[in-house]
Amino acid sequence: MTEAASSRLPTPPEVDELAARLLAGERRALSRAITLVESVHPAASEPRERLLSAVFREPRQALRLAISGPPGAGKSTLIDALGRHAIANGERVAVLAVDPSSHISGGSLLGDKIRMARLAQEPASFIRPSPTSGMSGGVSRRTREVTLLCEAAGYSLVMIETVGVGQTEYAVAEMVDCFVLVLAPGGGDEVQGMKRGILEVADIVAVNKADRADLPRAERARADLRGALSLFARSESDAERPVLLASAQEETGIRELFSAVQAFAESARKSGAFEARRAEQRLAWFREAIDKGLRQRFLRDPRVQSELDRTVLAVSRGEEHPSGAAERLLSLP
Amino acid sequence: MTEAASSRLPTPPEVDELAARLLAGERRALSRAITLVESVHPAASEPRERLLSAVFREPRQALRLAISGPPGAGKSTLIDALGRHAIANGERVAVLAVDPSSHISGGSLLGDKIRMARLAQEPASFIRPSPTSGMSGGVSRRTREVTLLCEAAGYSLVMIETVGVGQTEYAVAEMVDCFVLVLAPGGGDEVQGMKRGILEVADIVAVNKADRADLPRAERARADLRGALSLFARSESDAERPVLLASAQEETGIRELFSAVQAFAESARKSGAFEARRAEQRLAWFREAIDKGLRQRFLRDPRVQSELDRTVLAVSRGEEHPSGAAERLLSLP
Repeated sequence: MTEAASSRLPTPPEVDELAARLLAGERRALSRAITLVESVHPAASEPRERLLSAVFREPRQALRLAISGPPGAGKSTLIDALGRHAIANGERVAVLAVDPSSHISGGSLLGDKIRMARLAQEPASFIRPSPTSGMSGGVSRRTREVTLLCEAAGYSLVMIETVGVGQTEYAVAEMVDCFVLVLAPGGGDEVQGMKRGILEVADIVAVNKADRADLPRAERARADLRGALSLFARSESDAERPVLLASAQEETGIRELFSAVQAFAESARKSGAFEARRAEQRLAWFREAIDKGLRQRFLRDPRVQSELDRTVLAVSRGEEHPSGAAERLLSLP
Repeated sequence: MTEAASSRLPTPPEVDELAARLLAGERRALSRAITLVESVHPAASEPRERLLSAVFREPRQALRLAISGPPGAGKSTLIDALGRHAIANGERVAVLAVDPSSHISGGSLLGDKIRMARLAQEPASFIRPSPTSGMSGGVSRRTREVTLLCEAAGYSLVMIETVGVGQTEYAVAEMVDCFVLVLAPGGGDEVQGMKRGILEVADIVAVNKADRADLPRAERARADLRGALSLFARSESDAERPVLLASAQEETGIRELFSAVQAFAESARKSGAFEARRAEQRLAWFREAIDKGLRQRFLRDPRVQSELDRTVLAVSRGEEHPSGAAERLLSLP
């Protein structure tokens, strides 16, 4: 079945059946459900919302983990190793590989499965590349929805891979319970050119590629990072965020990383920070959905459409006052 | 005339007269115009937009400068010295002192005039504290509008003072042509606890309080900052952002700072970056005004009002799916 054929929009009874099979943990239902929520077809919004509402079961709280870092940090091999370790510990692991190149290359499903070859062979794993919409700087427009679907299908650990560029990390940090920043030891310039705030949103930092032969360099990188992290401490209490060494290649430090993630989640659950962060994220999503819906309806208005291009040009050139122009468009009869 | 009396909303002919007097450079007209645009009265939006459209003259391009830094960095004494130097060089200087405490204390007009006592005595200066709305993290809801008014009144240099906390610096960076970060030399931990990204938005850094007796400490701070800045270089070309020493108290380094600001603006004007940044800022303002207007109209809808509290609670508790809830409110008949 080609992608095009599978993207025929399902009828309401079909959506309900899809939801039931998804909740029963069927992989194929999960794949189809993801294709549905990622559909950009304007008419997809109705079946999408029907599906999401049907499977929306927050009590099935998986742990949502961001694995973020610059290209070349070895994120996918780390995810491969971490995912297999988690599965050995009884977890079911879903990976959303958000590949910023995929909207150009037309999807890198095969690429991701090769990059995470051993994890992909585990029956308790599910790997899905999310096509990124150019708009959101590397995060899929539907990453939150896809995460929910994975949880509904019974995956207990959802890892969201992102390349930490631009505003991506903030968007991802808004979707996860724990943010892991992955770096490779460089020539002492690990944080060189790193984008704004990634150190601030990181809950755990993993210095990957800390191979035996390279340990001194990795140790130096760790020391540098501890210094940099303390510059961007978010509060007194979290000044001591863990900086761990790992080698996905040699499979060292993976257990420690998984333990650090568990300890972080456990402590957040006890303090109430976990649920508070979730509540905040749900409200942020709600607000965004309201804003997005309002904007869509506004832009669909033919009177707005006939005025918009001209107005944008006049505003950008400084010929019309920005808020006056907005007021004018908003008041179109 | 008390604030309350002056805030009676003007009629359209009164607005037009106010605009004419403002464009003629009358200080009192400027003060009144600012009070009008800052009014939170719902009916103020009409005279506000009328006024802004009337005075909107982008060709009168003043230089917009952010002076941002943590409490205790000596921002106001630096503004006092820099402003007087600029006036001596033929500029007319407006200062928007955005004091985050003013919405609690009910305004610190007197405080600001005392803090910038010598500048306040200059006929070519205009100092105005902008009350901050709690919402926007330290920046006035109307700082952009007030900046426009100052420019329309003939001020050629507008300095916007902000305390660099939270997201303030991003909001301010979106409103200015040049962002000056002011720091005082501490115990080697100048950047300790600094909020996300302030180093990234800074175009120029001034190490203030570099008094003669304290020069070695200031020099060390400068070296540290240069290192930190290179970590957050925005592109190859701007890796070399100026880090200057100044002492507002001893009036040293003020000329150099003013020259650095002028050189930055000059170079940006030549490269086209100046106009590109302005165009981007106008469009960002336009988009925000559209979003804000849409949200206001939405929230004013009685059907939405009767549903909203309940929905927010359900969403935050995870009882209702966020985008489903948004869809439901958006589709209220």
